[in-house]
Amino acid sequence: MHTLQFQGRDITSIEDFTREEINYILKISKTMEPIAKKGSDMLKGKILANLFFEPSTRTRLSFEAAMLKLGGSTIGFGDVENTSVKKGENLADTVRTVENYADIIALRHPLEGAAKLAAEFSKVPVINAGSGSEEHPTQALLDLYTIEKEKKKIDGLKIALVGDLRYGRTVHSLAYGLSQYNIELTLISPDSLRMRREVLRKIQTKIPVTETQNLEKIIPQIDVLYVTRIQKERFPDQAEYAKVKGVYRIDLETLSNAKKDLIILHPLPRVDEIAAEVDSTPQARYFQQVWNGIVVRMALLALVLGSIK
Amino acid sequence: MHTLQFQGRDITSIEDFTREEINYILKISKTMEPIAKKGSDMLKGKILANLFFEPSTRTRLSFEAAMLKLGGSTIGFGDVENTSVKKGENLADTVRTVENYADIIALRHPLEGAAKLAAEFSKVPVINAGSGSEEHPTQALLDLYTIEKEKKKIDGLKIALVGDLRYGRTVHSLAYGLSQYNIELTLISPDSLRMRREVLRKIQTKIPVTETQNLEKIIPQIDVLYVTRIQKERFPDQAEYAKVKGVYRIDLETLSNAKKDLIILHPLPRVDEIAAEVDSTPQARYFQQVWNGIVVRMALLALVLGSIK
Amino acid sequence: MHTLQFQGRDITSIEDFTREEINYILKISKTMEPIAKKGSDMLKGKILANLFFEPSTRTRLSFEAAMLKLGGSTIGFGDVENTSVKKGENLADTVRTVENYADIIALRHPLEGAAKLAAEFSKVPVINAGSGSEEHPTQALLDLYTIEKEKKKIDGLKIALVGDLRYGRTVHSLAYGLSQYNIELTLISPDSLRMRREVLRKIQTKIPVTETQNLEKIIPQIDVLYVTRIQKERFPDQAEYAKVKGVYRIDLETLSNAKKDLIILHPLPRVDEIAAEVDSTPQARYFQQVWNGIVVRMALLALVLGSIK
Repeated sequence: MHTLQFQGRDITSIEDFTREEINYILKISKTMEPIAKKGSDMLKGKILANLFFEPSTRTRLSFEAAMLKLGGSTIGFGDVENTSVKKGENLADTVRTVENYADIIALRHPLEGAAKLAAEFSKVPVINAGSGSEEHPTQALLDLYTIEKEKKKIDGLKIALVGDLRYGRTVHSLAYGLSQYNIELTLISPDSLRMRREVLRKIQTKIPVTETQNLEKIIPQIDVLYVTRIQKERFPDQAEYAKVKGVYRIDLETLSNAKKDLIILHPLPRVDEIAAEVDSTPQARYFQQVWNGIVVRMALLALVLGSIK
Repeated sequence: MHTLQFQGRDITSIEDFTREEINYILKISKTMEPIAKKGSDMLKGKILANLFFEPSTRTRLSFEAAMLKLGGSTIGFGDVENTSVKKGENLADTVRTVENYADIIALRHPLEGAAKLAAEFSKVPVINAGSGSEEHPTQALLDLYTIEKEKKKIDGLKIALVGDLRYGRTVHSLAYGLSQYNIELTLISPDSLRMRREVLRKIQTKIPVTETQNLEKIIPQIDVLYVTRIQKERFPDQAEYAKVKGVYRIDLETLSNAKKDLIILHPLPRVDEIAAEVDSTPQARYFQQVWNGIVVRMALLALVLGSIK
Repeated sequence: MHTLQFQGRDITSIEDFTREEINYILKISKTMEPIAKKGSDMLKGKILANLFFEPSTRTRLSFEAAMLKLGGSTIGFGDVENTSVKKGENLADTVRTVENYADIIALRHPLEGAAKLAAEFSKVPVINAGSGSEEHPTQALLDLYTIEKEKKKIDGLKIALVGDLRYGRTVHSLAYGLSQYNIELTLISPDSLRMRREVLRKIQTKIPVTETQNLEKIIPQIDVLYVTRIQKERFPDQAEYAKVKGVYRIDLETLSNAKKDLIILHPLPRVDEIAAEVDSTPQARYFQQVWNGIVVRMALLALVLGSIK
């Protein structure tokens, strides 16, 4: 077994990782659980720059909390309104500026390819915190961590992704990640929101994939149901949005035919695709995912900054 | 005397505190004065999440400074524009997310009841940093601390609240707090901005309360004059605002009939309800209040997070 | 030689410094280079308040990074939208509030004179982080530091400032700073953007100054070329902006006649006044300036807060 190398590495796509590497990240994430509770000085003196060119509460605060819990500190911005970008600066220049301030950059950007471009120009490692409709690798890793933590395995599971599989970046990254494991994947969406063809083509070479519009029929066989919000802000045409909005809504009735040990995940925020009545069922795991996001991001920060070898 | 219990407690309303508890908070606040000057590691590793759904400089920075001076750190947001709320997330979900990132939450929200709702859903303690026109308990505590620090007592004082007693949340919380002491309260406001009936009814059972529109006549008897801004942004009808704007303005002439040891407080920001010429009088105490806000919030954070028993 | 005194001092204008003082700041900045790389606890427990009433990525993050690298922490705001200023608060009151939260204030403000006004009211030191079109002293200091670091001297150099010399605050501060040294200064700008008369008058009493519109002709003699963005947002008349936009653009052809050891500086952000092809030439030093900004600001913070005597 060769040594895994994370120090100084960019994390722009889940596709960059082998199964062995993903497993290693999940293993290190687990060791972060107690550290997340009591804090640490592992990254004392290190600075994370959060460059969020798109609105986010969850991911930005998660990265910040992860860095703080490791003893580091954070700088950055949460919207583009009050930045040099408004003065006409391009992303490459922003990155070549911020690399002087920080030891690592987390970047969220509305354009696909933004994280890769930033990584190309940056001397410090860049973590993709969401790029357009394309990728959200740290979300995929926390999803995988949640599945393994809750089901004690990933191999052998029947996993369904439901909702917006076209514009939702989390499902693209997750599908790539899952395709490293021996799972059966079901993709449930309205026709206009089917999984992007280029993602589908790649994952189909590795795992069995079924596409359907019928959630009800498929749910009795599923072990992990991954629900996504249909994101109004990503639709070029709002009439299209109106048509598919609310087409899948998980409530107690939906769950009546589900396995007892089904787990329901959601990258959050949710609007109404999961009814509030589901929150208190044993199947609901979407708020636990939030905690898992901290430990996974702690692992990534510690690995990339070289404090874990 | 039973033991006072603060660890893990939500602070959503000043009404939740007994007089004994308020006195204890003021006592701990006093012990924070030297710590506020030289810093401390009392809350090292702890994270405060500031969730400010409404504009604020003062309160947000005050909570941040308080946390930093205790060695902790802070995350959060200062406006709602760049948050998941824009994507349609409800407050309960925001709280169940953020409780994973932080050890304690300070919440400012435009809706009454928001802090109580958040506290209900949150596993970590919630401090109300201002909810609608309803309550602002940490401001009331720092007001009480200022009065006791400056006058060496609260009991026996003649205290007047002047300005907007209807929409101003600070005066509601302060009135509740003052009603725990043996004071005489005068409420001075235009008719349209009289103290809310439900507050008045409660405090009248405990202390003598006089309502008047005449500041001039009452001022010679007053020990503590608490001035508030008439808040344009809280008026449903701007014509109403125009009518009462500037009706009470404290200047040197106003003070010519006041007691020599009168103290003037104001929750700030002020616009023109206190003339700049008053700033250099010995009566002015409103900038000292800002400092007192730090030590009181330090006390609350340390108490609720259990580092002071 | 008398002792230089920085502790507790406001830094509102580069004009406040003697040549001896500037040299001392540059010397201390140099000692900050290793500390900027590995971090320090020099300012542990100290708080910097960044009050940015105007958009900025670079300067705000630079101050934050500088403070964090010295072990201190930061609070503040990056735009005026979500502050008490929106409620009508004046700058003096904001400062008299924030001085209670922080040990030092960095202020950016759209109005000239804002930093001086703030310093007058503040009990804690105020650093001008850019005031209107007037001054940007910390930028001038980092420019001087960059020149000395790259050329091993400042005296004897031929230095040209090109672009917007009227609205650009950085060139005003830099011109004052350079006038303390024995240099020859060339000012290159369109007629409508010539250096402000009051600046010109002052520096002409100290150093030889030439004004020209012809960059091409002058470039072979120049040692340091300081390029500035023509700032759309500062033009009262956008038709004026359209006329001068892009009039000076540095590309490989411009450089073909330049000295081999010319260095090109730019306060950033740039738009298109320096072509991307220049970035990889040995002359380009504008991204190194960003790093230098950190060490210079670390020096200033440490000096003003008295941790270096």
